Amino acid sequence: KNMLFNRWLCICSITHTINRQHMKKIIHSVKVGIALVVVSLLYLLDPLYNQVGDNAMWAIMTVVVVFEFFAGATLSKGLNRGLGTILGGGLGCLASAFAQDVGGLASALIIGISVFVFGAIATYSRMIPSIKKKYDYGVMIFILTFNLIVVSGMRADKIMGLARERLTTIAMGFAVCIFISFLIFPSWASDELHHSTVLNFHNLANSIQGCMEDYFNSTDEKKKNKSDASFSTCKLVLNSKSKDDSLANFAKWEPWHGKFGLNYPWNKYLQIGELLRELAATVLSIKACLQSPRQPSSGMREAIKEPCETAGSSIVWTLKELGEGIKKMKKCQIEGVIVPKLKLVRQEMSLVINPSKLGPTENSDGLAMASFL
Amino acid sequence: KNMLFNRWLCICSITHTINRQHMKKIIHSVKVGIALVVVSLLYLLDPLYNQVGDNAMWAIMTVVVVFEFFAGATLSKGLNRGLGTILGGGLGCLASAFAQDVGGLASALIIGISVFVFGAIATYSRMIPSIKKKYDYGVMIFILTFNLIVVSGMRADKIMGLARERLTTIAMGFAVCIFISFLIFPSWASDELHHSTVLNFHNLANSIQGCMEDYFNSTDEKKKNKSDASFSTCKLVLNSKSKDDSLANFAKWEPWHGKFGLNYPWNKYLQIGELLRELAATVLSIKACLQSPRQPSSGMREAIKEPCETAGSSIVWTLKELGEGIKKMKKCQIEGVIVPKLKLVRQEMSLVINPSKLGPTENSDGLAMASFL
Repeated sequence: KNMLFNRWLCICSITHTINRQHMKKIIHSVKVGIALVVVSLLYLLDPLYNQVGDNAMWAIMTVVVVFEFFAGATLSKGLNRGLGTILGGGLGCLASAFAQDVGGLASALIIGISVFVFGAIATYSRMIPSIKKKYDYGVMIFILTFNLIVVSGMRADKIMGLARERLTTIAMGFAVCIFISFLIFPSWASDELHHSTVLNFHNLANSIQGCMEDYFNSTDEKKKNKSDASFSTCKLVLNSKSKDDSLANFAKWEPWHGKFGLNYPWNKYLQIGELLRELAATVLSIKACLQSPRQPSSGMREAIKEPCETAGSSIVWTLKELGEGIKKMKKCQIEGVIVPKLKLVRQEMSLVINPSKLGPTENSDGLAMASFL
Repeated sequence: KNMLFNRWLCICSITHTINRQHMKKIIHSVKVGIALVVVSLLYLLDPLYNQVGDNAMWAIMTVVVVFEFFAGATLSKGLNRGLGTILGGGLGCLASAFAQDVGGLASALIIGISVFVFGAIATYSRMIPSIKKKYDYGVMIFILTFNLIVVSGMRADKIMGLARERLTTIAMGFAVCIFISFLIFPSWASDELHHSTVLNFHNLANSIQGCMEDYFNSTDEKKKNKSDASFSTCKLVLNSKSKDDSLANFAKWEPWHGKFGLNYPWNKYLQIGELLRELAATVLSIKACLQSPRQPSSGMREAIKEPCETAGSSIVWTLKELGEGIKKMKKCQIEGVIVPKLKLVRQEMSLVINPSKLGPTENSDGLAMASFL
């Protein structure tokens, strides 16, 4: 009964999560719609249009391109865009002025060469991992702005004015994005990272539990499917790296809010994620053991059943406890409760003469994690 | 000696790979530079400028945004951009014409509402996984074009002409990208995916070999570091999912070239990658066993050394053979050679009375893979 109830709770929390995600997506869509309307007013209202003119286009472009799902992503993309525009515009103006000083056919040559050199160098820098991770978009905008400014310098007389006006409208678009993204139902990458880390703890705990049940209780098909499901959540944990990395990247941009202060140690989340992935790898490798044709006799299985189940449930409990600890952001009673319990488990496991493959591996990883926190 | 030679070969192939990657990046940068110069000619040469005017800006923008490292990525982004522009432009023209028919203040209202509705719906669709995977960029361009056209319809008289001219210049930019990307030293995502799959086979084989050496031969620090290195390559394999997915996505766009025909089964690569990641998870979990404080006595270790090493080297050989098979794109002699060999290994392993944790897990996964190909 208790088990069924647990499953039910699990399913409930999943549907709850899905609904929450769905709502968040709808809210984000509405926010983008509002931002687009606000920025379109630059065109629609005569007094505003008389001020900015056709450059209002750049504000719309900024909103479309910069407005991302997470507040941190919007901020980082916007700042990248601003920085890229300023740098590219500045260098473009310099190059353009230099070319105009020379004049004649040489000027076109200088422009061509500068376009090639800056374009190639900036493109190369986009492929350097550390720049790619944080400034990819900024460098792209740098190339774009530099090129537009330097070639239109040939045609437009007031190149400085053009650059300034564009920058102003881009700043307007950016301001609209930031205002709407941060103040109207903001969706924080930091919340998401926090939440997904907690979820990973619970997913792993459920996977391990599913494993134990599978190994000791049953051979029928129905349960088989359940264990497959628990392995697929395990795989979700295993493949969480790129998502976690980008979330942490955005979270670092987000200002103080809610329970997260400035300089919140986001890298710790990545380290925890790494350990969780290692544990997920271990759990996944148990699958191979479970499916292996060479299985212990049922008598032997009975003999190891009790200590293994005790150990397994301790590990499940530990994982859930750690997950809850992170969720509520309070220190677990590592020294007092968890470590002695795990040590006890380990001792018990050593007493089992022919230990199952399950026990020791999980145990040592569990300990590694417990000692980490 | 043989081992050292193997290591040396391995290091050579890695440096060779790095150099190759480096060269490819430089070639890509130069290609982008050339594309930018070519497209800047629209501004720089008077006869061309008289034709396209300030719309040349859109050609530059297209090159900067669309030109990606892989030919397939460039094609997919370019087609996305084209499709998004056409759809957005068409709908924008319709909405704009409708608003102008109504006239007066209601027209501004209609424009505002259509901006909001289309923006919100399109933004929501960007978050649906299947659309996000393939058409994310196209939808973004759709929003952008729709907005620009619909709001500037208020101001410009010849909205259709504007849309057509922009589309023409975007097509010019796209043509330049495709031409340079496909014809000058093209870098194919398909080659990269093929190559990285082969590399994953070899990485895993080396990891397993490192494991065996570590377990049976040594306790000193130097070797410890080596095994850490072999685990880190193992982690590379484990985290290859998102990279493989995007490469396969691009590869599907790439036309017939070299050894890859049309309708080449790229999804098979993803399936193989999935199995390789499972194997990598198993290998990684062996790390926990190796680091566990509870180790068998050295006598016991000696007893299982020979069969385990035989099994291990068979698996390493199998992986390398499969990798070579994929590299050379010929069918391995699965039925004739590999399967009997693995079956023999399995029998031998069963004879070992107290099997080490290494053997069976690797073995069953190896079999799973052998039966797959």
